[in-house]
Amino acid sequence: MEIKVLHQVMEWNQDVSAKVRKTLADRKVCLINVMGSPGTGKTSLITALIKRLGEEFAIGVIEGDIAGQIDAEKIAALNIPAVQLNTDGACHIEAMSIEHILPHFDLDKLDVLFVENIGNLVCPAEFDIGENFRITILSIPEGDDKVKKYPLMFTDTNCLVLNKYDMLPYFDFDVESVKRDYRGVNPEGPLFGVSAKTGEGMDALAERIGGEIRAAIR
Amino acid sequence: MEIKVLHQVMEWNQDVSAKVRKTLADRKVCLINVMGSPGTGKTSLITALIKRLGEEFAIGVIEGDIAGQIDAEKIAALNIPAVQLNTDGACHIEAMSIEHILPHFDLDKLDVLFVENIGNLVCPAEFDIGENFRITILSIPEGDDKVKKYPLMFTDTNCLVLNKYDMLPYFDFDVESVKRDYRGVNPEGPLFGVSAKTGEGMDALAERIGGEIRAAIR
Repeated sequence: MEIKVLHQVMEWNQDVSAKVRKTLADRKVCLINVMGSPGTGKTSLITALIKRLGEEFAIGVIEGDIAGQIDAEKIAALNIPAVQLNTDGACHIEAMSIEHILPHFDLDKLDVLFVENIGNLVCPAEFDIGENFRITILSIPEGDDKVKKYPLMFTDTNCLVLNKYDMLPYFDFDVESVKRDYRGVNPEGPLFGVSAKTGEGMDALAERIGGEIRAAIR
Repeated sequence: MEIKVLHQVMEWNQDVSAKVRKTLADRKVCLINVMGSPGTGKTSLITALIKRLGEEFAIGVIEGDIAGQIDAEKIAALNIPAVQLNTDGACHIEAMSIEHILPHFDLDKLDVLFVENIGNLVCPAEFDIGENFRITILSIPEGDDKVKKYPLMFTDTNCLVLNKYDMLPYFDFDVESVKRDYRGVNPEGPLFGVSAKTGEGMDALAERIGGEIRAAIR
């Protein structure tokens, strides 16, 4: 008799993320997974992208947080459909949660769905949630040693954004050193220096993300 | 026949943390668990405390990182015994790791062992590592909504340190709002505003931590 083997969390997650990816491809929706430390500026970056991409694309947002709905309220204030996912303690979002949330959106009316992952530079990188594209944010006040210390988040991403660039004068942050470390683990990954607050660098980033969305939904 | 039940990770961790706590109490060493986001200033705070407490107490440091030994090198440069613990991907430190590391220190010559946990505002709070005292750091650039979003890290701590206080003029950070949120989940916990970089507020924090150490090792 065949032994029944229970799937491990990671394998199960892979099955579900493949389903999510297929559902979204069928409905022509691009899923973008936004990751980074607490306070790195994930909500601000998504907001700044909405301002620049909201004319061309119909946007929705899934806001992941352990508790509360502060961020979903900020997004909903922009008249963007937003769903708050509270993980009640879990340190990352899994594909299962995305699968459960999708029915809360009218996918036929969406082009792109941003997922703001839990503020965490470690665990979210391990979980494929069915995304087309990953953005990792590192903000200047966090320091320039983070690629060395948290490599997976910078290896398994499609784009590194250095946020709070307007704060460079106030912190010892060696941009070239971060670029070198990033190139070492992710030779092809694009890198953008931006300030979601002042708008510096945001147009170039929005142009790139727009191109990724167009490629995903055409 | 009795069914053998394997301990869950959390239960196992509790058993080992109790052993660590007893070992350290027997040897009169105080264990301080320092937690916070990536880049919140854990190493800088430990360094600033070493400068103020190093005359009175014999100090050792366990530096937790997913990869690399940048922080242990900084501590060792101060002539303080330091051991780097690389978790190779894990997002927190468990008591098992502390148990394995203790033999690398001469405990009879130590009064206090600081553990710099993995940069993560979520998972480390769930694991008792046998500490006498927990310090949670939140830095001004991370934003003033973190107690609401990551409650456990602020509930299960003995002290909240707001670091990078010198950056208050450059960020929209409402200290009073954080204080209110913190009082809501942790009515008795002390709160300190400091800049590990400029030294602002560090003497008051060092005095408090010194008192905790004295109480633990007398």
